[in-house]
Amino acid sequence: MEKQKSKCQGRQSMYFGNGVYVRGMASIAGKLEGEGPLGKYFDVVQEDAMAGGSTWEEAESNFQKMAVEHAIADAELAQTDIRYIAGGDLLGQLIATTFGIETMNIPLLGLYGACSTMGEALLAAAVFVDGGFGGNMVAMTSSHFAGAEKQFRFPLAYGNQRPMAATWTVTGSGAVVLSPKKSKYPVRLTSATMGRVVDFGVKDSMNMGACMAPAACDTIARYLEDFGAEPKEFDRIVTGDLGAVGKEILLAMLREKGFDIEQNYMDCGMEIFDADRQGTDAGGSGCGCSAITLTGYILRRLAQGTWKKVLFVPTGALLSTVSFNEGNSVPGIAHAIAFEYCPQTE
Amino acid sequence: MEKQKSKCQGRQSMYFGNGVYVRGMASIAGKLEGEGPLGKYFDVVQEDAMAGGSTWEEAESNFQKMAVEHAIADAELAQTDIRYIAGGDLLGQLIATTFGIETMNIPLLGLYGACSTMGEALLAAAVFVDGGFGGNMVAMTSSHFAGAEKQFRFPLAYGNQRPMAATWTVTGSGAVVLSPKKSKYPVRLTSATMGRVVDFGVKDSMNMGACMAPAACDTIARYLEDFGAEPKEFDRIVTGDLGAVGKEILLAMLREKGFDIEQNYMDCGMEIFDADRQGTDAGGSGCGCSAITLTGYILRRLAQGTWKKVLFVPTGALLSTVSFNEGNSVPGIAHAIAFEYCPQTE
Repeated sequence: MEKQKSKCQGRQSMYFGNGVYVRGMASIAGKLEGEGPLGKYFDVVQEDAMAGGSTWEEAESNFQKMAVEHAIADAELAQTDIRYIAGGDLLGQLIATTFGIETMNIPLLGLYGACSTMGEALLAAAVFVDGGFGGNMVAMTSSHFAGAEKQFRFPLAYGNQRPMAATWTVTGSGAVVLSPKKSKYPVRLTSATMGRVVDFGVKDSMNMGACMAPAACDTIARYLEDFGAEPKEFDRIVTGDLGAVGKEILLAMLREKGFDIEQNYMDCGMEIFDADRQGTDAGGSGCGCSAITLTGYILRRLAQGTWKKVLFVPTGALLSTVSFNEGNSVPGIAHAIAFEYCPQTE
Repeated sequence: MEKQKSKCQGRQSMYFGNGVYVRGMASIAGKLEGEGPLGKYFDVVQEDAMAGGSTWEEAESNFQKMAVEHAIADAELAQTDIRYIAGGDLLGQLIATTFGIETMNIPLLGLYGACSTMGEALLAAAVFVDGGFGGNMVAMTSSHFAGAEKQFRFPLAYGNQRPMAATWTVTGSGAVVLSPKKSKYPVRLTSATMGRVVDFGVKDSMNMGACMAPAACDTIARYLEDFGAEPKEFDRIVTGDLGAVGKEILLAMLREKGFDIEQNYMDCGMEIFDADRQGTDAGGSGCGCSAITLTGYILRRLAQGTWKKVLFVPTGALLSTVSFNEGNSVPGIAHAIAFEYCPQTE
């Protein structure tokens, strides 16, 4: 009974008592991302934006394929050792994922959580692995600047202008292999909080940070309350892509709830580009933004023991061009995943 | 060890040893579906295709909301008793789901599996519940004829013609409450097989049955092999929406693999409409097709003990208008879920 109880702290949160470990990881970044502040950390910087494909969508599929293959190799496994893949992308009907992994013969749990997808995939995969159903399981996602502009804004060829509050979709794909057994990486996925759809009625699709900040606040506060944790326990509390605008809203909203996370707050969208130098406006965004920042940078800091505990909270803006053009608001969602450094001597 | 082993029969399949029970269910059908052969079984027939909404997408959201609320009430629970919802829909970026459940304050695991989504949602929810993470959890999905025509083919106002091999997207939403405890319904979700993306290179988006049949074959054969089961053990082996064309392909392909399922085969798409009388061409399709056939008809037969064991295999065609217009094939995916009658005396 005690064990069962430890799994269910509060309504939204989960504790993974059987052990879910990071066994492999991969970060495949685009050229602009490779030129940014985190460039040196990525496994591969793919200079060709088409990645050998003939369309933007095929390019994104090729990024995904590389990420999954690289992560499986990093885990010192073969594709046949992977039981399931949990993943998705931003494109309608997840076509980047479908065509990215279709040759791998690995069953797919297709997910959509907008830019929160890396969190959703890690959460779902952790439940499978901890429950004894996952064996080795891959969590992954991707995004592509040109594909996302075409899907959500305007095709690049239109040359439209962007407001400063707009974020810049990251071209890249990140993948993690989770395993029930300890591996060469002393990093454990200990717990998670699944997010709710939070709608504050914001209708500005060029200001995603403001749409997503209330969801990030809701999930972070819920995690801290469910586990009786304090922000200072974490070396970093990391959101996905709130950017400069969303950051201020999040910090203020959490302060109202009694949580001050400013000292150890980090946003992947603000780390991945040097906005002034690179002209990326409010910062990076897209499923790939938090995914490659996690797999290239955050998990490596944890594996080295430089950081001991990180709360990873990718954020998604839930809209389509249809819902937006029909005058709907842009609700947000965020999922929280806690990683801990776990040295082999434990 | 024995228990762990029983959970992992073969690479793609799972056995839910701790017990996952059907506690509530709901089937909300559109007018045409209500006039079809299964009409009398549905909980609600919503005569207004807009369901009180002002757009087709809002209509679909309203169907979903009704289905989830109805299923929770049927389970004799309150919304606060539901830990998570696993669900999705056909529309780009899952907008029917986002706006359908956003007022419920229940965390969302957003899924995309095209018309296989009810299977994917049940599979994911069963893993959460069996692993001790789900408490009471809702699995649900929906589709809407007019929203799907607009998303994938042409807006209705264009009055385009449809080939006979085209299927008719069902307007409706189905929801199931899964629980770790036995309930008034003596029905247990015992096992599942997660499907792979299967691509036979079919490029005809008006002939979804042919696109999806190879995926259904792959998953059904895998389930039977992983559990050493024979088709005759099942009162019905039920696909989602292969229709008249896909049925023949599936039966022939399975026969080649040594499985004859013709005697106990059923396809939701062929049951839900009387194609000759209702003019629905090759049969029903859409996430809602298998969902309301499951919740309105199949689960009730199991609850009565009329059927003892059913393998439910909804099938999805993985395409978007972008992938299709770029000349890509239409891959398929199918997930298999086994339900069993479990009388209270057991």
